[in-house]
Amino acid sequence: MKTQYYTASTLDGFVATADDSIDWLMTLGDPEESSYPAFIAAVGALAMGSATYEWVLASGLAWPYTQPCWVFTSRELPRVAGADVRFVRGAVGPVHAAMREAAGDKNLWVVGGGELAGQFYDAGLLDELIVQVGAVTLGRGKPMFPRDLTGRPWRVVSATVMGERFVELRYAVK
Amino acid sequence: MKTQYYTASTLDGFVATADDSIDWLMTLGDPEESSYPAFIAAVGALAMGSATYEWVLASGLAWPYTQPCWVFTSRELPRVAGADVRFVRGAVGPVHAAMREAAGDKNLWVVGGGELAGQFYDAGLLDELIVQVGAVTLGRGKPMFPRDLTGRPWRVVSATVMGERFVELRYAVK
Repeated sequence: MKTQYYTASTLDGFVATADDSIDWLMTLGDPEESSYPAFIAAVGALAMGSATYEWVLASGLAWPYTQPCWVFTSRELPRVAGADVRFVRGAVGPVHAAMREAAGDKNLWVVGGGELAGQFYDAGLLDELIVQVGAVTLGRGKPMFPRDLTGRPWRVVSATVMGERFVELRYAVK
Repeated sequence: MKTQYYTASTLDGFVATADDSIDWLMTLGDPEESSYPAFIAAVGALAMGSATYEWVLASGLAWPYTQPCWVFTSRELPRVAGADVRFVRGAVGPVHAAMREAAGDKNLWVVGGGELAGQFYDAGLLDELIVQVGAVTLGRGKPMFPRDLTGRPWRVVSATVMGERFVELRYAVK
């Protein structure tokens, strides 16, 4: 029953370019022996920001989640047929409570972006970071986690090499 | 006989704050089972930028290196008694050749900062990145490697957990 921020990042801590491109990730290919199938099987509810939601829509893929998904947005966004999407705005606390209610004893996934993950962290509601670090840098872009944690470090749980292009790092946040 | 960029970084890819503070690193403590003793024993020559050099001076510690050290600077900087320091400016190529000459069959260490490491990389002269990733983020600061490597990824060599606060990642750059 953890709240997890599971994401991919460059070695310099960016999830996307300034204009939300993830070409850096696409050119790396999928991580070998990905942890994703086991991870998503244990997830009971999702939360994401509007840019992440729009990226999923723009990808042209079918909606990939069977779990209920809360989308934080202050704008009107298109709905996806057959997807259990709930548009919300404001503080993360009440949404987290609703996600917890929906997920039963499964985990909650904060899909991204970094600012939304930071808001869950600020509210004391984030338990784990699981990040697939790609073997590239961007130099600039959208940060994975736009916070200053100096003096309140996380705890390393594991580091796993996944092929030649990725390392998966896991941190306990609390 | 490799040219190595060996450094510590936050999880979001910063080596220091914008004003060159490394308090984030000091509060994490030393990595357990550090690779540094074995690493430095195999180093025959060092290169660093002026900010890195000034940080060593300001630390108040005795000059920590017995190897010759090339310091890239466009300013007049104080000398350290007993230290083999050679002030240089301009392109990294000729300096790399002089370092190679001095180091014999030992490795060359690009101490930092990130921009200098980037210049060695741009010139095709960097072989390895070895980075101790601390379990904190800064949100902003001086980047570990201010380059866009999209489409030309590095190769993961290893990932090693070092206590609760650090993971050491090694990459082959060429």
